[in-house]
Amino acid sequence: MKVYLSGEIHTDWRDQIVEDAAGLDVTFSAPVTDHDASDDCGVAIMGAEDSKFWHDHKGAKLNAIRTRKAITDADIVVVRFGEKYKQWNAAFDAGFAAALGKSLIVMHGAEHQHPLKEVDAAALAVVETPQQVVEILRYVRDGTLPA
Amino acid sequence: MKVYLSGEIHTDWRDQIVEDAAGLDVTFSAPVTDHDASDDCGVAIMGAEDSKFWHDHKGAKLNAIRTRKAITDADIVVVRFGEKYKQWNAAFDAGFAAALGKSLIVMHGAEHQHPLKEVDAAALAVVETPQQVVEILRYVRDGTLPA
Amino acid sequence: MKVYLSGEIHTDWRDQIVEDAAGLDVTFSAPVTDHDASDDCGVAIMGAEDSKFWHDHKGAKLNAIRTRKAITDADIVVVRFGEKYKQWNAAFDAGFAAALGKSLIVMHGAEHQHPLKEVDAAALAVVETPQQVVEILRYVRDGTLPA
Amino acid sequence: MKVYLSGEIHTDWRDQIVEDAAGLDVTFSAPVTDHDASDDCGVAIMGAEDSKFWHDHKGAKLNAIRTRKAITDADIVVVRFGEKYKQWNAAFDAGFAAALGKSLIVMHGAEHQHPLKEVDAAALAVVETPQQVVEILRYVRDGTLPA
Amino acid sequence: MKVYLSGEIHTDWRDQIVEDAAGLDVTFSAPVTDHDASDDCGVAIMGAEDSKFWHDHKGAKLNAIRTRKAITDADIVVVRFGEKYKQWNAAFDAGFAAALGKSLIVMHGAEHQHPLKEVDAAALAVVETPQQVVEILRYVRDGTLPA
Amino acid sequence: MKVYLSGEIHTDWRDQIVEDAAGLDVTFSAPVTDHDASDDCGVAIMGAEDSKFWHDHKGAKLNAIRTRKAITDADIVVVRFGEKYKQWNAAFDAGFAAALGKSLIVMHGAEHQHPLKEVDAAALAVVETPQQVVEILRYVRDGTLPA
Amino acid sequence: MKVYLSGEIHTDWRDQIVEDAAGLDVTFSAPVTDHDASDDCGVAIMGAEDSKFWHDHKGAKLNAIRTRKAITDADIVVVRFGEKYKQWNAAFDAGFAAALGKSLIVMHGAEHQHPLKEVDAAALAVVETPQQVVEILRYVRDGTLPA
Amino acid sequence: MKVYLSGEIHTDWRDQIVEDAAGLDVTFSAPVTDHDASDDCGVAIMGAEDSKFWHDHKGAKLNAIRTRKAITDADIVVVRFGEKYKQWNAAFDAGFAAALGKSLIVMHGAEHQHPLKEVDAAALAVVETPQQVVEILRYVRDGTLPA
Repeated sequence: MKVYLSGEIHTDWRDQIVEDAAGLDVTFSAPVTDHDASDDCGVAIMGAEDSKFWHDHKGAKLNAIRTRKAITDADIVVVRFGEKYKQWNAAFDAGFAAALGKSLIVMHGAEHQHPLKEVDAAALAVVETPQQVVEILRYVRDGTLPA
Repeated sequence: MKVYLSGEIHTDWRDQIVEDAAGLDVTFSAPVTDHDASDDCGVAIMGAEDSKFWHDHKGAKLNAIRTRKAITDADIVVVRFGEKYKQWNAAFDAGFAAALGKSLIVMHGAEHQHPLKEVDAAALAVVETPQQVVEILRYVRDGTLPA
Repeated sequence: MKVYLSGEIHTDWRDQIVEDAAGLDVTFSAPVTDHDASDDCGVAIMGAEDSKFWHDHKGAKLNAIRTRKAITDADIVVVRFGEKYKQWNAAFDAGFAAALGKSLIVMHGAEHQHPLKEVDAAALAVVETPQQVVEILRYVRDGTLPA
Repeated sequence: MKVYLSGEIHTDWRDQIVEDAAGLDVTFSAPVTDHDASDDCGVAIMGAEDSKFWHDHKGAKLNAIRTRKAITDADIVVVRFGEKYKQWNAAFDAGFAAALGKSLIVMHGAEHQHPLKEVDAAALAVVETPQQVVEILRYVRDGTLPA
Repeated sequence: MKVYLSGEIHTDWRDQIVEDAAGLDVTFSAPVTDHDASDDCGVAIMGAEDSKFWHDHKGAKLNAIRTRKAITDADIVVVRFGEKYKQWNAAFDAGFAAALGKSLIVMHGAEHQHPLKEVDAAALAVVETPQQVVEILRYVRDGTLPA
Repeated sequence: MKVYLSGEIHTDWRDQIVEDAAGLDVTFSAPVTDHDASDDCGVAIMGAEDSKFWHDHKGAKLNAIRTRKAITDADIVVVRFGEKYKQWNAAFDAGFAAALGKSLIVMHGAEHQHPLKEVDAAALAVVETPQQVVEILRYVRDGTLPA
Repeated sequence: MKVYLSGEIHTDWRDQIVEDAAGLDVTFSAPVTDHDASDDCGVAIMGAEDSKFWHDHKGAKLNAIRTRKAITDADIVVVRFGEKYKQWNAAFDAGFAAALGKSLIVMHGAEHQHPLKEVDAAALAVVETPQQVVEILRYVRDGTLPA
Repeated sequence: MKVYLSGEIHTDWRDQIVEDAAGLDVTFSAPVTDHDASDDCGVAIMGAEDSKFWHDHKGAKLNAIRTRKAITDADIVVVRFGEKYKQWNAAFDAGFAAALGKSLIVMHGAEHQHPLKEVDAAALAVVETPQQVVEILRYVRDGTLPA
């Protein structure tokens, strides 16, 4: 079972999931989570740009090579929305995954319930914690529920 | 040529586009832009819910019937990000459209350039004004540029 | 907007919907609702069978020509489960429609809620009456809610 | 060869198939067959619901994560209809599999022949026993018939 | 409803169908049925070939432009096998249509039942006469059976 | 590289290809080539039929489970037409493979050139001998030509 | 029948085809053939760029909105290679059309035969003149050959 | 991660990439780069042709068996345009890959920027050297940037 972990990159939620899922027959993938590398990869490899727009554009396209493959290969796409930032790329990934018919799990706090209602409506599960994600993966994979 | 106008519903940008495009052989579609109707349609038709989550859930799914058809039928999807709110549904629509191979035009102000870089990277055009959208539609349709 | 009305053929729910939806820009399709014709069409055209299995088989395949086209062409598939009979063809249509990414509306009484939970989970709306179906179609099409 | 075993979960037909197929190069998958876990998985992981509808809804969606992947990955989908219950989820799976072009094998007793005629018409084989399923798998895989 | 009439071109079966179907809301398409034009179209337009293989190749490819579009656009593909010739192009069309999920109606005499069993197995109806084809189209379209 | 060997089952052409291709990184699949088993598999497993049509029908559908998977999984489909019989199933397989975008290699003697022109026109190679098939596979796989 | 006329924009070959095809039931589409408009459309609408790369990039993407729709909607894609320039966009269009399964007609002079062999190999017709294109369209549409 | 290296075959750019990428979890594929074998493979295996067109045609189709599989299997398609020759097959591959939604990396010198603008506009990265390709693959795979 292949699971892509999309969205917020400033907390360690991916590590928690991977750790908790030890022993489960699941392969995880993720975007590049080094914020600076992710922002600057385009110009670092293909040359500097004067304009911030093209600087970002080159980087975002490089990251898309990774992201598109990961979503396309995944059985399940988990998208986490954190407390800060616009996170439009997370919602974009969710839409992309939904259009491909991937199973979508959305993770966010209660404070974001209303603005995420369209994203949640496309999901097969809406959760708040990494532990719940792992419980779902364990149930889906092995049929066992938390004690 | 079918064009879906997704995103921000608090200003009259759709009206401006439709008006400016008078005479062009283009058919526009849009989400329901009456905010209250959009929020409450689910419970209004299918019965009240105690929980805000399910209240919103029922509404978001009804709106998805309209949105999915409009995006699927469209040749071009225009997504506008305004100055306020989270607008995750706009980014979700953009991702959904991108995965279906639709031509994507993104409209937003310069202040949102960085957080929208992944969405912009999937677009065939990034603009700031409704007038630019119409100029693009006119060029794509008739081959004529603004004087 | 094309809507396929699948399922139960012993009450007049389809007539109610079509009548209530007068004036709406919606085209309805339906299976052959003449029970005897539906059961015997295969042998009536292609010759009698000794075995009930092949009698039914020939008929079911003829009906599939109509059904598959109707579902494939539809934007929305409404599936109604009535009070009697097994109605496995209704659930089959729902699964078929879901796999094609059609918007699914399921109609049934409260007494069938539990055994229909998997079908409901694939739907964008679950209702009890033909009037609700029309209210949904009107909202999705014109953005207007019942007074 | 990947085979998904859908449908009735109250008898040991899956075990019989798996046992009989020992030595065949076939991988089997199945839904969660623990009835209580299957019913309650949603609320067990994502929190209780007052309404039976949403209780079931959350569970059915979790189960869909497993089911959709299994059907999508399968070469062959076997759907068994037992003697009791509505079993609409089985018919839904059959429709879903048919729309994806999967090879469908339906298993049921003679008493259900007429109401299952549409499902049978979409199948490449209709059988009554687990032994016949294994004979088919052995023939399809190795070209050998029962003695 | 779009119907493509594939196969044998030496009898007037297509005319019989079109005539009998007068008044039905059905659009028919067919290959070029002028045998000489069909054989020589390639070299007539694109220049002579010394080799029979390339003479035929150029013609067959031109005809494929028409055939592929007709099959792709069709809801139903009727394939008739006559008494003479190899008619491998008819069987090829049947396979092509089947892979695209088109509804297949096969027409042939009893003498060809055994060698056509794989083609028949992919069909939703197997008939012997043009009249039966029209009866099917009328039933599928209007729900009425022959008196 | 996966190669499906379709068509004529009365000579040892498949064995010649497999033998000649020893050492090449290619996996071959084929239909059941035991003529009697292939004809009778349906009734042997699922019970006798009075009518030859249904006898053949049940068998042809079982064989389709194997054939469809093999063609769907294949990179290359080789279809051989022999000197005898109608071989409509071979042409059907060729059409099915073409519609799925598979690379098609057709093998037949010069005497069948004209009636196979439509099938040949869909092929990427037309050959006469098993040795040529292996030379093609070797070239496509390793880039080496026959000395 | 929808035909997209791709490639060389410096001679009047499109006009010749459209004129010759008068009376045929064919709808033609084409890229913007005003060279300056095509080159500068991006910056004319979305603002100037210092770098020639981004100047061209913005324009090429706008043109892609038109081109992708035209190819996607077309039944037949005609690609003409002229005597001058690199014309990589023409070959790109041919590849794009081929991958979508469109019927491809390639037009070029004998001097380009060798370097266009891969493109020609994907085509259903290879011609030298606009007249031949129209003769093909007339044959494919009406079954009539040039006198 | 599977990467197809398309285009120019007269310099050692593929070797440089493969060498630089040692240790990366990437599988490379390529066309047959022996120019003479690539030109003559068709006639070498399937017999001589008098006409240069059909000589080339047979070869181009054999090469297409390899090329189509490689592009279809690839996650990333790198297309290099060199300094000489028409290289229309490279642009064709780029269009083919783009239509399949593959991630496209284009490599060429500055002198070809303008005529390649449509190809570049479909790419997720445009580079000049093999080293940049490997830096991209390393970043996409491992998230590490060049020091």
